Amino acid sequence: MVLGLARIQCLLVSIYQSITMVVAKVWQLVRRPEGEPSVEDFLCVEEELPACSEGDVLVEAVALSIDPYMRYKARQIPLNTPMFGSQVAKVIESKNPEWPVGTHLVHYEGWRTHTVLRSQQLKNEEHFGVMHLPDMGDLPKSLGIGILGMPGNTAYFGFLDICKPKAGDVVLVNGAAGAVGSAVVQIAKLKGCTVIAFAGSDEKVAWVKELGADHAFNYKTTDVGEALSKVAPKGVNLYFDNVGGKFTAQALPHMADYGVVSLCGAISTYNEDVDIGVPSLTSPFNEGTVIWRQLHIEGFLVFRWTARWMEGLNQLKEWIEQGKLKYKETVFQGFEKMPSAFIGLFHGENTGKAVVVP
Amino acid sequence: MVLGLARIQCLLVSIYQSITMVVAKVWQLVRRPEGEPSVEDFLCVEEELPACSEGDVLVEAVALSIDPYMRYKARQIPLNTPMFGSQVAKVIESKNPEWPVGTHLVHYEGWRTHTVLRSQQLKNEEHFGVMHLPDMGDLPKSLGIGILGMPGNTAYFGFLDICKPKAGDVVLVNGAAGAVGSAVVQIAKLKGCTVIAFAGSDEKVAWVKELGADHAFNYKTTDVGEALSKVAPKGVNLYFDNVGGKFTAQALPHMADYGVVSLCGAISTYNEDVDIGVPSLTSPFNEGTVIWRQLHIEGFLVFRWTARWMEGLNQLKEWIEQGKLKYKETVFQGFEKMPSAFIGLFHGENTGKAVVVP
Repeated sequence: MVLGLARIQCLLVSIYQSITMVVAKVWQLVRRPEGEPSVEDFLCVEEELPACSEGDVLVEAVALSIDPYMRYKARQIPLNTPMFGSQVAKVIESKNPEWPVGTHLVHYEGWRTHTVLRSQQLKNEEHFGVMHLPDMGDLPKSLGIGILGMPGNTAYFGFLDICKPKAGDVVLVNGAAGAVGSAVVQIAKLKGCTVIAFAGSDEKVAWVKELGADHAFNYKTTDVGEALSKVAPKGVNLYFDNVGGKFTAQALPHMADYGVVSLCGAISTYNEDVDIGVPSLTSPFNEGTVIWRQLHIEGFLVFRWTARWMEGLNQLKEWIEQGKLKYKETVFQGFEKMPSAFIGLFHGENTGKAVVVP
Repeated sequence: MVLGLARIQCLLVSIYQSITMVVAKVWQLVRRPEGEPSVEDFLCVEEELPACSEGDVLVEAVALSIDPYMRYKARQIPLNTPMFGSQVAKVIESKNPEWPVGTHLVHYEGWRTHTVLRSQQLKNEEHFGVMHLPDMGDLPKSLGIGILGMPGNTAYFGFLDICKPKAGDVVLVNGAAGAVGSAVVQIAKLKGCTVIAFAGSDEKVAWVKELGADHAFNYKTTDVGEALSKVAPKGVNLYFDNVGGKFTAQALPHMADYGVVSLCGAISTYNEDVDIGVPSLTSPFNEGTVIWRQLHIEGFLVFRWTARWMEGLNQLKEWIEQGKLKYKETVFQGFEKMPSAFIGLFHGENTGKAVVVP
């Protein structure tokens, strides 16, 4: 009789679970992009999520990040698995008292609407682990994947730690209306530098000037070398590079002796057929220039500074609250927009951070 | 009568000067080299030297330096002027008590047998100025343009200051039988590193092994990438690059995370049509690799360390005296050999430092 009750109870749980089973929508990578990615490289599938075990939580995406680095991930991850990416998500079911329902967090489980995060993952606030969202007050939660997240810290550490700016330094920033570039422009101004910014439209240029850039140009209608000759006759001391390729080839001759290049990204080359770790002779870092100008070029991934993560976010938040740091988001509505929002990066469709709200 | 004597005296001085007038032989650059330099790019002329004024000295070349960087100078200096270069010279006439007859020094007045150094030049022991030769005991004076001069300090500072080696680091050196590379191999071993060396002949490889390299290869008969896969399965931490171009393209994929490239030279590219400060897209520093491996690439000129010049030379001399640092010289006899010795650099004709003794 006792056994019978237990079995009925078990049956009821099963029925409850099948009624409440959560189905996630997931964008998989189904084909390696050749050149510019196309929507056919991705496929949206439904995935039945397992129930939460002790210590797990179920989260729902609040804002999904669209970032240039994902183009590299599309070369690396296995096909027919979820496309790599981060998101701000909200706990909607919890079997973990440290992550109660309503908690906001950032995870890197990819392009998906719902996710079960296992207890083990929740213990590991590290590189590509699960991170608590910092207290953001009245600011939008989506900033946790923008100016108060990875792109913000990319600008903060990648500029300050690698370029080590001094007041009066001449700083060059490209992709200056992007999530990272727009922050670098403002941080450089806060440090007393002269800032030369390049962006991809007249509207973006106007915004970058509002942010304080001393000189701003539309690289599509301006000769980069000529512009730098005019506004940086003594050369560029610090170059924060998001673009690479031809832009950097044009800019490098304008570096001053002992100039530093903080190599954050090279979006102009991401659709080319040159992968990481492959021998190539197509880079803009002219060896003669690097030697004779004694340049320091340094590539970085922001997770180098994981141990100092909150230092960056706290400073960025303080600057935002003081009105010293501005940001923009380009929000794409609808989870179905993930591939097109991503492809749009390569056409400069975003100003500031590109985000998909499902 | 007094005036008459003075005039006679003056006449006698003139006669004396015309008898004793020194005629220097000077190699001028008369044509810009296209691709590999040819002997026709240079012309040997005679130059009547002026008499020494108060404070001047007349010096005679003892050993003339042949260096890869001169290929860049051949793009920069005015045509029909002396080819740029350094030499160890000996004072043979002096009107300066600080530089008496018999003093040895290093100057940068170019490819010439005799030179009048003006009092102003002798006050300026700086970048491309006139430098006293360090006390070398029984060592050959020619080392003042070799292991106890610019190439020695290039290895010393360019490796130690930029690469900051730790015991156990895996170090890659190319041009490893050259003046600079052979010193880097040994300094890296003194610092407890594992050294992988590449040179251009089996004889050179044998010598580099004698110097202590853990692994040494003839790059002409070995696939650089395959060799590095075998001997550096965890990657290269520090890469001292003298060669650039295709070699570096092959080596870069084998850099470990946070690897450092000390970019000393790129001799394999010097005869290509890519000048300093010219936009180009032909460099081996694959942007994806630099970013994702978080590489630090730094070009340098040794004169960055002018203020610490004697620190380097004193340490190098101590190591030589202790038998810890070995060197070779390839000596070309005859001032007429200057152009051919220079061209020979691009065919690997030298082992260790290339020197012309006039």
